[in-house]
Amino acid sequence: MDERTGLPVVGMVGAGQLARMTHQAAIPLGQSVRLLADSADDGAALVARDVTVGDYRELADLRSFAHGCDAVTFDHEHVPNAHIEALEADGVNVQPGSAALRFAQDKLAMRERLTALGVPCPVWAPITTAESLQRFGDDAGWPIVLKAATGGYDGKGVWVVDSVDDAAAVLASGTRLLAEEKVEIVRELAADVARSPFGQGAAWPVVETVQRDGICVEVIAPAPELDDDTGEAAQALALRIAHELGVTGVLAVELFLTARGLVVNELAMRPHNSAHWTIEGARTSQFEQHLRAVLDYPLGTPDPTARWTVMVNLLGGPEDVEPKGIDERVHHFMAHWPDVKLHLYGKQFRPGRKVGHVTVCGDDLTALRERAAAAADYLMHGGPHD
Amino acid sequence: MDERTGLPVVGMVGAGQLARMTHQAAIPLGQSVRLLADSADDGAALVARDVTVGDYRELADLRSFAHGCDAVTFDHEHVPNAHIEALEADGVNVQPGSAALRFAQDKLAMRERLTALGVPCPVWAPITTAESLQRFGDDAGWPIVLKAATGGYDGKGVWVVDSVDDAAAVLASGTRLLAEEKVEIVRELAADVARSPFGQGAAWPVVETVQRDGICVEVIAPAPELDDDTGEAAQALALRIAHELGVTGVLAVELFLTARGLVVNELAMRPHNSAHWTIEGARTSQFEQHLRAVLDYPLGTPDPTARWTVMVNLLGGPEDVEPKGIDERVHHFMAHWPDVKLHLYGKQFRPGRKVGHVTVCGDDLTALRERAAAAADYLMHGGPHD
Repeated sequence: MDERTGLPVVGMVGAGQLARMTHQAAIPLGQSVRLLADSADDGAALVARDVTVGDYRELADLRSFAHGCDAVTFDHEHVPNAHIEALEADGVNVQPGSAALRFAQDKLAMRERLTALGVPCPVWAPITTAESLQRFGDDAGWPIVLKAATGGYDGKGVWVVDSVDDAAAVLASGTRLLAEEKVEIVRELAADVARSPFGQGAAWPVVETVQRDGICVEVIAPAPELDDDTGEAAQALALRIAHELGVTGVLAVELFLTARGLVVNELAMRPHNSAHWTIEGARTSQFEQHLRAVLDYPLGTPDPTARWTVMVNLLGGPEDVEPKGIDERVHHFMAHWPDVKLHLYGKQFRPGRKVGHVTVCGDDLTALRERAAAAADYLMHGGPHD
Repeated sequence: MDERTGLPVVGMVGAGQLARMTHQAAIPLGQSVRLLADSADDGAALVARDVTVGDYRELADLRSFAHGCDAVTFDHEHVPNAHIEALEADGVNVQPGSAALRFAQDKLAMRERLTALGVPCPVWAPITTAESLQRFGDDAGWPIVLKAATGGYDGKGVWVVDSVDDAAAVLASGTRLLAEEKVEIVRELAADVARSPFGQGAAWPVVETVQRDGICVEVIAPAPELDDDTGEAAQALALRIAHELGVTGVLAVELFLTARGLVVNELAMRPHNSAHWTIEGARTSQFEQHLRAVLDYPLGTPDPTARWTVMVNLLGGPEDVEPKGIDERVHHFMAHWPDVKLHLYGKQFRPGRKVGHVTVCGDDLTALRERAAAAADYLMHGGPHD
């Protein structure tokens, strides 16, 4: 509790864009998020007051950071689960807790648990040897998807392989692996929900996510032409997973829509790229909702504020952008797209890096998609924008 | 320019709620507002990284604060105009500049200038002696409104007096004074606009403001049942004042609607309480727009995002609220009004002090007003909320 305000202090481990946007959402709640940053120049650390620079892999750093926090939560899933258990043993209120987070940190554990719950997943198997991979590929059909059980994100730690030979280097690396069938994807969806320790749940409309090279580039809310039954089934599935796994805070369930129905791809137990659109597009943003949930406050209304909301990620281009270059582009962006909302994360631009996003709300989906894509393309690559 | 991000640095003198909400709006623009705070515990200082504690009445403090800012702007109008002129002489980019700010700092100068421009004002006169007050009151009709030319806010520095005797203490104090007729007010409106140094202007819909004891308690956007001609005239008037006075950033024009038409009450050249509703209720909030304007960025769309938006101020009640008391109330508030948006300013609660506001958007104005008022009343006073 902050003695000056009488309001709670949420500590967030990590100071990237998710922490930055969570701090932004904390301000109107009368709060100021406490950050454990890798560096004082991390995106969130640039804009927050209460910043500790430390190492999330060191229990001692986590312990001193957690002292005085009413709840501790996460910007990423890389904190060792044993450290989270140790914090819990200390009496720290960690949300989501270690028992839930395990399933966002370890894809093998996630697949085992979801399969046990009867949640539809791709055909999958743990892979420890070339023989087990050969057997899996022969059964499921090549190519298959090989995944590192831990540590992957944005397409990293994922390999599509045609044969055991193709996977030789990965197999030899000693990485814990699982294999999944390469499902025929009709489209990719995300069901984003929040759940509080008390057990209250809230679901945003199901969205469509558009990927390029394994990275989300665009989100459309709600998912266009999704039949009501499928949308409601996806929401119910996400709320059920949140309940069964004891998730608190935001849970993002990445889904494949396939010919045989919905299949769970990945889980994230934190604010997630697929729900950035909620800042403008929903009555309660995912960042506010995450704070409410981890503090066991009652949840806010997840209703949309517009017919359509389109979010497009800003991915650093291959060109170097001089620092002054981005400011000039921001001028032109603002002149040309006065209703498109900009979100910059305070990060250095590097090829393929998520450095921001843009969001636009309205009634004409085709026009919104075109304008958001053009605005993002101009911001990242310059050049003509008509 | 922040070398890490390539984006500009706005310095704001003052660290109250306006600076707090401006910092919140700066985050998605990739910026971090630099604050000159009276105290490290000021509302905005609690949530921002780049905070200098200093005295806005000291030119030396202002000078060192302004160093490295791409633009310097204000949370309040109390910085001595001569200091602002000195900063300008140093080459600091102050927005709004001293020449414009003078008319927000000095009501005598404002009345003279607006009258010269033919802008409708209440009948007014400078008051230096009991005789001049007697003459004014006899002409305009008692009671009249006596105002301190400088330093007033939220009803302070304003006296309704029935006679010269009634004004004896104020007259004797040596305060620079003006008198205004007590106009018959049909309703109070505000026309909020923004203007950039380049000369671009943008106007939000005209709102109705509801006052109690000289303090704004509620804002309804747009002003209900206002005929289009009057609304457009109010917007045009505000844009004209912004142009004629060379205002940059947000200009709030407080208006009386009277039997003889619109009359200007006050001007503020900064984000203003009458436009807090724009955070949720407009595509571009006044805080984002103020940043865009003072940086000479192109302005954002001021279009509303909902049919109606109602904002109600949270004014500290006569009861003391224990620090823990507010957190418990926030729980109940969130449970009961999941779609009403909370804004707390990080301030100590004191009777009559603006410590936050709530905003709600929707289609049924009567219901919105009732719910926003009930939510605010509960947060400030506790008790039943059905």
